[in-house]
Amino acid sequence: MSDYRAPLKEMQFLVEQAVAATGVQQIEELADFDMETVAAVLEAAGEFANRGLAPLNTVGDEQGCSFADGKVTTPEGWKAAYDQFCLDGWMGLALPMDFGGQQLPKFIAQPVNEMWHSANLSFVMFHALVQGCSEILLKFGTEEQKARYIEKMISGEWTAAMSLTEPSAGSDLGELKTKAIPQDNGQYLIKGQKIYISYGEHDLAENKIHFVLARTPDAPEGSRGISLFAVPAYRINEDGSLGEFNDVLCTGIEHKTGLHGSPTCSISYGDNDSCYGELIGSENKGLAAMFILMNEARLSVGLQGVALGELAYQKAAEYALERTQGAHYETKERRVPIVQHPDVARLLLTIKSQVFAQRGLGYLVAALVDKSEHCQDEAEKAVLEARIALLTPIFKAFSTEQSNLMAGSAIQVFGGMGFVEETGVAQVMRDARITTIYEGTTGIQAKDLLFRKIMADKGVALESLLAEIEETATKLKADADLASLGGNLGGAIYAVRGIGAQMAKSSNLLQLNAGGVAMLEALGFLTSAWQLGESALRAQAALAAGDDPKFNGNILAMAKFHDAHLLPQLHARLSTFSQAAAGIADYSFDD
Amino acid sequence: MSDYRAPLKEMQFLVEQAVAATGVQQIEELADFDMETVAAVLEAAGEFANRGLAPLNTVGDEQGCSFADGKVTTPEGWKAAYDQFCLDGWMGLALPMDFGGQQLPKFIAQPVNEMWHSANLSFVMFHALVQGCSEILLKFGTEEQKARYIEKMISGEWTAAMSLTEPSAGSDLGELKTKAIPQDNGQYLIKGQKIYISYGEHDLAENKIHFVLARTPDAPEGSRGISLFAVPAYRINEDGSLGEFNDVLCTGIEHKTGLHGSPTCSISYGDNDSCYGELIGSENKGLAAMFILMNEARLSVGLQGVALGELAYQKAAEYALERTQGAHYETKERRVPIVQHPDVARLLLTIKSQVFAQRGLGYLVAALVDKSEHCQDEAEKAVLEARIALLTPIFKAFSTEQSNLMAGSAIQVFGGMGFVEETGVAQVMRDARITTIYEGTTGIQAKDLLFRKIMADKGVALESLLAEIEETATKLKADADLASLGGNLGGAIYAVRGIGAQMAKSSNLLQLNAGGVAMLEALGFLTSAWQLGESALRAQAALAAGDDPKFNGNILAMAKFHDAHLLPQLHARLSTFSQAAAGIADYSFDD
Repeated sequence: MSDYRAPLKEMQFLVEQAVAATGVQQIEELADFDMETVAAVLEAAGEFANRGLAPLNTVGDEQGCSFADGKVTTPEGWKAAYDQFCLDGWMGLALPMDFGGQQLPKFIAQPVNEMWHSANLSFVMFHALVQGCSEILLKFGTEEQKARYIEKMISGEWTAAMSLTEPSAGSDLGELKTKAIPQDNGQYLIKGQKIYISYGEHDLAENKIHFVLARTPDAPEGSRGISLFAVPAYRINEDGSLGEFNDVLCTGIEHKTGLHGSPTCSISYGDNDSCYGELIGSENKGLAAMFILMNEARLSVGLQGVALGELAYQKAAEYALERTQGAHYETKERRVPIVQHPDVARLLLTIKSQVFAQRGLGYLVAALVDKSEHCQDEAEKAVLEARIALLTPIFKAFSTEQSNLMAGSAIQVFGGMGFVEETGVAQVMRDARITTIYEGTTGIQAKDLLFRKIMADKGVALESLLAEIEETATKLKADADLASLGGNLGGAIYAVRGIGAQMAKSSNLLQLNAGGVAMLEALGFLTSAWQLGESALRAQAALAAGDDPKFNGNILAMAKFHDAHLLPQLHARLSTFSQAAAGIADYSFDD
Repeated sequence: MSDYRAPLKEMQFLVEQAVAATGVQQIEELADFDMETVAAVLEAAGEFANRGLAPLNTVGDEQGCSFADGKVTTPEGWKAAYDQFCLDGWMGLALPMDFGGQQLPKFIAQPVNEMWHSANLSFVMFHALVQGCSEILLKFGTEEQKARYIEKMISGEWTAAMSLTEPSAGSDLGELKTKAIPQDNGQYLIKGQKIYISYGEHDLAENKIHFVLARTPDAPEGSRGISLFAVPAYRINEDGSLGEFNDVLCTGIEHKTGLHGSPTCSISYGDNDSCYGELIGSENKGLAAMFILMNEARLSVGLQGVALGELAYQKAAEYALERTQGAHYETKERRVPIVQHPDVARLLLTIKSQVFAQRGLGYLVAALVDKSEHCQDEAEKAVLEARIALLTPIFKAFSTEQSNLMAGSAIQVFGGMGFVEETGVAQVMRDARITTIYEGTTGIQAKDLLFRKIMADKGVALESLLAEIEETATKLKADADLASLGGNLGGAIYAVRGIGAQMAKSSNLLQLNAGGVAMLEALGFLTSAWQLGESALRAQAALAAGDDPKFNGNILAMAKFHDAHLLPQLHARLSTFSQAAAGIADYSFDD
């Protein structure tokens, strides 16, 4: 069984789709990043993902991290891969040149990140942390803070950790208890216990900068009283060199069902009252700063769904092409490759078409972020930000929920072999299991979507999206071969609008809360069908020009498959949404 | 976190439902098995499941089995539990008294088996093997063979193993290559390699009787040339005592993602040309004999889906009642138990309502088997057998597919804690993963359902089922509170009939094969709604009599929840079935 190979052709096709939809390459600052540049970057990243990272994925799963005396040891080969990753400049790919980064736009960084996630998600988790924490510093840090941290994180000498969760403060960060007491020198004494800190301790870099949420003594209760601090594991001298131990102690790592190679640490800050941190941004504004990272992280986790789906697909498709078993459903020929059994093909296309659709959505959002960051027009920027805000929870939750189903379908293709660890496909299932939970569970994404992204603006952002999807439906209807896809997409929009109108008038909080995930999934199927519809239109045009019949034919086949096998679920989800309160209030759980 | 507790009240409610639906207690031979007896047996079994088996479930997962020098060692405490299990008479619960069994009907054995599966599935797997292989012997064995094997298996001195799969013969048993060469003394020399043999080797009993599928020298090709042999690991002397080693060598065990406590063995028969077995039944009729066991096993695996769903529910519900986090959706009270969040309640009820529905179906099928076994009227027996044959693949595949989703939902309730192994809920996910694969994958169940159970008899058995479900719908419609459930159930029947009529005329083998699982799932949702509808009617009557408002109110709530949250998916699945070929033939997988 071979390791991951980056699907360069499909990635480029969908980068082009996102670029065409947003016009992001017409922005002056981004004009250099043409498709040739994209191709060159993706090829180099693909090479490193395939050869440098993918072979370590099984090693990480089998060995896991080990913990002793406050120190974490990562699996064999990880330190060398880390050094190479940094040396090749991948750490700062989308960070400013001023600090040693490559300053590439997100629409190129996104497919690169997807490759890292497919090749070895446990390993590369430090990268999203450095990227996200650097962006916090770029937005909220002082010039000194930027200078102090970002360059060393890009070079890989130091890494970043995101320190939010406490035993009693998970989804509800307002409950957190870690204290930050101001000192005369402007620093803060930090004291508290945090859990679930990815890469909070490890042996890849000499220092770790913990971005810690904590409360100052007079802070208001709840989420309005949270501040953000940079807390290095080892203090930093004036000249940037490492100082003394900063009383940041790793007390253990979790024994998880997946992501064994990624250390999930419990950290004790200030056991000996000598842990110091510096404030990032203003007091009590920590959650706003953390939301920069959180939105970034949500898009990253959505992309993990795509990446793990791709990995599951590659493993299952390779097996299905090689394994012979059973008779052909029509010719009755014996011992055919199992890919020829329609139900196996169905499982593979269920994965493949969803991966393709979610990838399209993920790349689109990345291009929208680039566009919004360079947008000078306030009104246009607000529209772009609303669109990004609307799509983020859909992408995060739907892509990851689907990736769990995809991993299951891939195991199913393997049959009994899929239950045996040596194929690696069971690892995908185990690794994927966290993606619907971390950075906000599916339930939390649904609440965000329904209340903050749809109802708060009275459906304006949703209607603007629906209108754009309608344009795709109209184009599909004009193509004889794709007209039924257009009809079904139009029908889906009509159904969503109908429920949206109901929703606007609803004050049934039980129904809205219990139905949120159903609504989110309905919009997940809708946006998937939209992205595949766009791809089908482009593939159809390419076919008319005689371009790559196999590749473009496959895209049409995926769009038609999705329309028949996935899109119908939209209507079931909407039907559930409209009656979601049924039975819930009447049930007594305490039996 | 407490271990499993058997849900006695719900089990009894659904045994009563199955008994009422089939009239099985009116059969003379079964008249003694009244509800008082049921309650007594379930209570005793529940006690042993809770105290004797459940605490070993985590031990089994953590320690797993170990293998060295052809021998398998089971986890700590398993041998003592095995001895107790046999001593208490559980092994022969549903086997004849003539051989030391208790001869209980299946409608009582079924909930007992469910308890074993919930409490410790890895452990108890030997039991279904003894039960199934004994039934083969009862039907196809000679009197000597019955006498030789069954009593010792019921006493626990020996166990049974089912030896089918070979590396190149998994789903397609016709490909198997193991040889059986007749000897002068009436025995057969066995030679071949088998894999995936559950409990093929272990340290719980002194001998293991392998029921091996193999080919005699002149056997026809394919599945018509397969014979069944009883092959003991140690030869059996005339007086029943153990003889020499029979050249049955365990060469290794699999490293699986779940069911760590159950040894999955590779077995080499006749490495030294001294492995002998005796024929069971006639030459070349092995598959027919094995199907006895297979049907039994399919019902058992379907029940595993129920059992693991119940375990997942118990863990998640307990956590959701204890864990406080976040504000109440309406009152805004802080730090409420998370069960009060509607989306958490939705996750729990998704599990609970499906467990209840699948349990109802599983118990019903067990009662139908009892009825059919005691039926003297040929025509009635044929109808009963057709009903069982129709429901078996639906129950096996749908219940297990749902159990995978349920385990995922339970993890979701735990949030980050669910990804950490210590809660035990991740183990449920890992254990459940095999249930959609072994004893015939979901795809194979769907093919069986569509071609052999529906199309081969031109839909007669299906229509007979639909007519019975229609009676439930009619009764529901007559109850003001449940009328909308009746309407939706009626609508579902109408939709299935419509598609069934299309199907009868279809010769599109690609569509039928690619859509089989969608059709099976549609019938899964239909039969679930039917069972919950029946339960709701009975609960409504009990409420009218003032009986246990909480318990019966919960049943009504589950039925209403299922109607809103699960049943709508039936229509999506049927829509997919009717266009299932879309895109499949046009996609090239070899890219």
